[in-house]
Amino acid sequence: MRALGFDPGTATTGYGVVDGDASRLRHVAHGIIATPADEHFALRLKRIHDEARELIRVHRPNVVVVERIYFKQNVTTGIAVAQARGVLALAAVEAGLPVAEYSPTEVKTAIVGYGRAEKRQVQEMIKILLNLDAPPKPDDAADALGLAICQVQAGALQSRLRE
Amino acid sequence: MRALGFDPGTATTGYGVVDGDASRLRHVAHGIIATPADEHFALRLKRIHDEARELIRVHRPNVVVVERIYFKQNVTTGIAVAQARGVLALAAVEAGLPVAEYSPTEVKTAIVGYGRAEKRQVQEMIKILLNLDAPPKPDDAADALGLAICQVQAGALQSRLRE
Repeated sequence: MRALGFDPGTATTGYGVVDGDASRLRHVAHGIIATPADEHFALRLKRIHDEARELIRVHRPNVVVVERIYFKQNVTTGIAVAQARGVLALAAVEAGLPVAEYSPTEVKTAIVGYGRAEKRQVQEMIKILLNLDAPPKPDDAADALGLAICQVQAGALQSRLRE
Repeated sequence: MRALGFDPGTATTGYGVVDGDASRLRHVAHGIIATPADEHFALRLKRIHDEARELIRVHRPNVVVVERIYFKQNVTTGIAVAQARGVLALAAVEAGLPVAEYSPTEVKTAIVGYGRAEKRQVQEMIKILLNLDAPPKPDDAADALGLAICQVQAGALQSRLRE
């Protein structure tokens, strides 16, 4: 299974691509989609949508994963995040792909085994799990890799339960 | 000028199309885009995006107008509204159209002359301005017509200031 994770945001959307099955994980790619701060929000959403389609075309994932969001803290940022999340999910559906969602707590539990782990711990664990030389940067890309790993592990678990 | 207004929501997105210049307003169409409650959010966003593209293709507006949103009340609904708003703005940009935004207070002020007017007053005024037999229904479609009227009036004002 190949999973493409997105950590949505208008200014910076992180992405991460991970291959895997029950016995191994493999890092494929990670990075960010960045949009200019002085551009109209609708044009920025089009950039995010276009680049997401291109990432799907290039990496051919089996599933797209986005963060489940809650607006407890910054609601203004929350609107921008939800709008970006909307066009990312749309890009997945347009490519015929399922869209999975995990909360930050679910990702931390899947990766570190502890839902309240610190960001640095999660990033160190991603480095180890994917056999990287250093923790992935920037944070948005690391979070996207975390989502992809979470999905690959959940998929492997489901396969084992079916055996 | 022809304006297409959208009042976004995952379950129901209202739309309204209004023609106009400095001296008159003309009702073209209004209605809703409805999506099934039991469908995955990503599929519902694709329905909204597809139907918005079709409305743009059929009605050929010069501008698309969406409500400016604030999350003061229901934040869970807010996420769904912002996601729908994202794919609506995307549909406009994909068609090469500008996207304007007005707050509910701006719409009320433009239509009733009073930012804290009640919904019923706004709907009665829309009925009069657009020469309809009855106030437009449902509420989401009426709100979308309000956005379109607000944009047409703003456009007419700008034209007059340029003369």
